[in-house]
Amino acid sequence: MWAPRWRRAAGLVLLVLWVLPALWAGAGARWSGEGSSAQLQSIFLGRCADYTRLLGPEQRSKNCTAIWEAFKVVLEKEPCSVLPSDYDLFLNLSWHPLPRDKSLFWENNHLLVTSFADQTRRFTPLCDVLYGRVGDFLSWCRQRNASGLDYESCPTMEDCENNPVDSYWKRASMQYAQDSSGVIYVMLNGSEPRGAYPVKGFFADFEIPYLQQDKVTRIEVWVMHEIGRPRVPVKLLMCVDHSSHPDCALKSAAASSQRGVPSPYAEPGAGLIAPLFVAALASAAQF
Amino acid sequence: MWAPRWRRAAGLVLLVLWVLPALWAGAGARWSGEGSSAQLQSIFLGRCADYTRLLGPEQRSKNCTAIWEAFKVVLEKEPCSVLPSDYDLFLNLSWHPLPRDKSLFWENNHLLVTSFADQTRRFTPLCDVLYGRVGDFLSWCRQRNASGLDYESCPTMEDCENNPVDSYWKRASMQYAQDSSGVIYVMLNGSEPRGAYPVKGFFADFEIPYLQQDKVTRIEVWVMHEIGRPRVPVKLLMCVDHSSHPDCALKSAAASSQRGVPSPYAEPGAGLIAPLFVAALASAAQF
Repeated sequence: MWAPRWRRAAGLVLLVLWVLPALWAGAGARWSGEGSSAQLQSIFLGRCADYTRLLGPEQRSKNCTAIWEAFKVVLEKEPCSVLPSDYDLFLNLSWHPLPRDKSLFWENNHLLVTSFADQTRRFTPLCDVLYGRVGDFLSWCRQRNASGLDYESCPTMEDCENNPVDSYWKRASMQYAQDSSGVIYVMLNGSEPRGAYPVKGFFADFEIPYLQQDKVTRIEVWVMHEIGRPRVPVKLLMCVDHSSHPDCALKSAAASSQRGVPSPYAEPGAGLIAPLFVAALASAAQF
Repeated sequence: MWAPRWRRAAGLVLLVLWVLPALWAGAGARWSGEGSSAQLQSIFLGRCADYTRLLGPEQRSKNCTAIWEAFKVVLEKEPCSVLPSDYDLFLNLSWHPLPRDKSLFWENNHLLVTSFADQTRRFTPLCDVLYGRVGDFLSWCRQRNASGLDYESCPTMEDCENNPVDSYWKRASMQYAQDSSGVIYVMLNGSEPRGAYPVKGFFADFEIPYLQQDKVTRIEVWVMHEIGRPRVPVKLLMCVDHSSHPDCALKSAAASSQRGVPSPYAEPGAGLIAPLFVAALASAAQF
């Protein structure tokens, strides 16, 4: 009598030992980021084709299928082993020059920047450049220890540095900064509780250091204040030492950003922290 | 001696008679509209997949491939024989309900409406509904007397009424109007030399007559004035007979639309011609 019961119990234990790790590996690890976007390839190809209509005739012949093929090599790699350089061929194929005086860098303002830029009509932020557009608002990663995309979750910086999405934005940001010329615009969020200028972030780490000093004529920083949200004081480190400089004239800047504007497009709050960035750029250029 | 020369000449004549009509048929007629958009299928499928991410979970399972298959039947028809009803299946498959109080109709304001609506965030004009989004800013038609798309030109209303693009917008507009509910917004262009309200146009012919009187609570008309462009007086037909009505109080409306706004988003110039539309709606509902 005990033999069948023992075998049944042993069978259950075996099943649990077998099935659970298989399920675990199949579903992939539970990363802290959003899973791969559904229909990634279709969205990617469609955006690429749609975007090329905005390009000049000499750039319009981009081969979107080849760009996708170059991109998707990262979907075959372990989700914590994707380097910025894995996007080199993708970037090579999707690259096009940027218009002068149209670069718009930003932090903590994604939706505002997207609608403000208006499909390259006003400005050309990274998400309005072909190599930034195809991945904008999307997520992608392979399953851990298995082929196929992980639709449940993808790693972020919290999980591992070399994740597919961050490596993509690093590579794209470096290129974008290198190619930017003329007047450089920066839109920061003055209502961000951690401060308008994140000391660690894509702008500080992968854009400022790659700006080309000989191509940049001026940097204009806009600090936007969300309507109805508390105004977080911007970092005025440099102004403390240059309080008589016109860029540090707080009163008029405050007046202009308090003026009621019936849209999320607040007036640029003057170049309050521009000296800070110019200093950062100058020091970066010494590398 | 004359025989070969005659035969050579006859050969040339035959060649001309043969080749020219073949070239003509192959290249398609020279219509007055833009040719089919390059990579139409890829753009269509990508927009469809991208758009479904904006839909609620119960609508997100749209089958974009099936929607494309239903759409492309018109690409197999003669370019002057496409009826609005040819899009019935396409519309059936891509249909989703519209949010209340978010419908935005317009004439002569396409780019402004697209950026103002901001991907359904502020409003849901037809181009922000799945069945309008997939064809927005695109063109398509089959070659005349031949299979394959005509990339040179496509017919417009000037060439023939039943052309693929106009029939698409007619069918989509009728559906959009029928499904609109609550407060209805209309954005007209007060700087349009032919008048803010086109008496013939999609809004007058395929939208107003299809609005459902029992679902519409109010119609609000905004007459936008392009900054720096002459202000064309709006049609005040109804106000001539109702000059003491608050909606006809010209002075305050003029003051509000003259106030400088540092963006193309002018202030709505009050409901100047709203009574006109309400009258039109009331008469349309008697059909």
